[in-house]
Amino acid sequence: MAGDSQRPGEFELIARYFAPIAGPGGLGLRDDAGLLRPARGYELVVTTDALVAGVHFLPDDPPASIARKALAVNLSDLAAKGAKPDGFVLTLVLPKDWTPDWLADFAGGLAQEAQAGGCPLIGGDTVSTSGPLTLSITAFGSVPAGRMVRRSGAKSGDLVLVSGTIGDGALGLKVHAPGRPDWVAGLGEAARAHLTERYLHPRPRLVLAEALQLHASAAMDVSDGLVGDLAKLLSASGVGAEIDLDTVPLSDAARAAIMADPALAELAWTGGDDYEILCTASEREYPALAAAAERAGLGLAPIGRVTSQEGTVRYLEAGRARLFAQGSFTHF
Amino acid sequence: MAGDSQRPGEFELIARYFAPIAGPGGLGLRDDAGLLRPARGYELVVTTDALVAGVHFLPDDPPASIARKALAVNLSDLAAKGAKPDGFVLTLVLPKDWTPDWLADFAGGLAQEAQAGGCPLIGGDTVSTSGPLTLSITAFGSVPAGRMVRRSGAKSGDLVLVSGTIGDGALGLKVHAPGRPDWVAGLGEAARAHLTERYLHPRPRLVLAEALQLHASAAMDVSDGLVGDLAKLLSASGVGAEIDLDTVPLSDAARAAIMADPALAELAWTGGDDYEILCTASEREYPALAAAAERAGLGLAPIGRVTSQEGTVRYLEAGRARLFAQGSFTHF
Repeated sequence: MAGDSQRPGEFELIARYFAPIAGPGGLGLRDDAGLLRPARGYELVVTTDALVAGVHFLPDDPPASIARKALAVNLSDLAAKGAKPDGFVLTLVLPKDWTPDWLADFAGGLAQEAQAGGCPLIGGDTVSTSGPLTLSITAFGSVPAGRMVRRSGAKSGDLVLVSGTIGDGALGLKVHAPGRPDWVAGLGEAARAHLTERYLHPRPRLVLAEALQLHASAAMDVSDGLVGDLAKLLSASGVGAEIDLDTVPLSDAARAAIMADPALAELAWTGGDDYEILCTASEREYPALAAAAERAGLGLAPIGRVTSQEGTVRYLEAGRARLFAQGSFTHF
Repeated sequence: MAGDSQRPGEFELIARYFAPIAGPGGLGLRDDAGLLRPARGYELVVTTDALVAGVHFLPDDPPASIARKALAVNLSDLAAKGAKPDGFVLTLVLPKDWTPDWLADFAGGLAQEAQAGGCPLIGGDTVSTSGPLTLSITAFGSVPAGRMVRRSGAKSGDLVLVSGTIGDGALGLKVHAPGRPDWVAGLGEAARAHLTERYLHPRPRLVLAEALQLHASAAMDVSDGLVGDLAKLLSASGVGAEIDLDTVPLSDAARAAIMADPALAELAWTGGDDYEILCTASEREYPALAAAAERAGLGLAPIGRVTSQEGTVRYLEAGRARLFAQGSFTHF
């Protein structure tokens, strides 16, 4: 198990690359554990998301991008739950051919995302594998006790809302991955760059967390596709919904792609990797949520309404019903 | 990514195998996050340990044993830090050939260990891999604020103490793994069974947690070998030690193995997989720790004394100095 002498051992690796990202609760990453203490009256929201090379990102993606995405998808969960980030732990499962350069770049991306999200590293583990690079992050955030925004609070009559734009991530993967389909060539360079950026670097909507905690009846982040994730939220809440697909917010780049190949609309709605907020709110609470989104420079589009018909989601496109064969992408 | 139709999807898999292990903070594993709320005046100790098939366990080990070990090694860290378990999250990275039987057995072992440790599941993630089975667990425990037992508190003059017996895990791996060395055949069946059991099923020393929190000056669990882990504790504390190897506690089975092949003593002291507690305590606090261990039916052997000579560990064997070429096993 002795490592290549050109490369640092685990102890040195932690000190060199990860200790600089550690917050006070990480104790310099020199102990066996980190510490968290929620403020009085608050509780901790705990979320875990793992990423595997070749499944959740491409093995040759820039290491900094892989690190940023691994943390961002966890911060996205905290945001959807209305929580303010407190820290995270990282399990890094490294293939045997890692290099110090690769790791330095990875740690740089991780530091950038940790800083942007106000979420320091407090611990973790590093192990080696004969398989693909795998990352597991568990992130912690605070909410006033009892105020975590659940999936299960949607009420009949609530508005269904979605932040930012939908479909960019799934389209971005097509642009970014080898074997580009024909429509990619027809897009302008700016559109291609936009979609790729959205796939590689999800932006956790932490700016909405407090407003969600105060005003949303239910929320989750969109990671496995809008259609599939909405089904999960409605199912947890024991309700249904009527959704007007024409109101689902799209970026200019996604619009251009769908114009070139109308079949891509389905990919946008079901493909995943959006990391936007899907939430519900009553008519009364909606203006406060919308105002918070506007202050953050972020769209929060009403796309439909919750109904009492449990298990039934009616999708309308240009006024006509639309059915989805497969609800959601599964990474599993 | 659609799974084999004979096998449950991720949603069903969670509901069937893992929801029964969930505590109240897990919200039935039906949301994106779990919740933790330390009692007033307490803080949370957070620890993470990952295990990879072929590195930390054998791929063909019983699934229940793999699960038990994955949780036990994390509970062992909590015990060493003086913390009472509150819950854990599991990242399960499954090879594509998993079967429902395998998973049912795995979940059974996990439930058993969670119950024994009073540590319910509160969340996690399941992903698939082209590589080996990989598990990452992050476990949470409570200590009165500011009372986590650090690695860094050992003082000159303190006794160095170790719980249970040392070397069984490393010897057990030799007994258990294919390609048994000659000495294994010479052991009795009971000794072989004891060593294998110790390798497969570490017993986290949670019974010592409270006493450690009250009376130890420094502690960690022995996972990478006594010699290497002691070096880490002393280094964090800025001290040295003098250790009498003749007082390191051994099981009858380990004694029999070392009798058959004296070179195995080195493996016992450096091999790892012990999951015993290594701690230091002043002469004044030692009796209270020893009494707690005795009440728990567990040995807590003084094996030496902390010295002020930072970076120097003197090992004595039969009154003569002994040097170790390689301090610790590294899983990385």
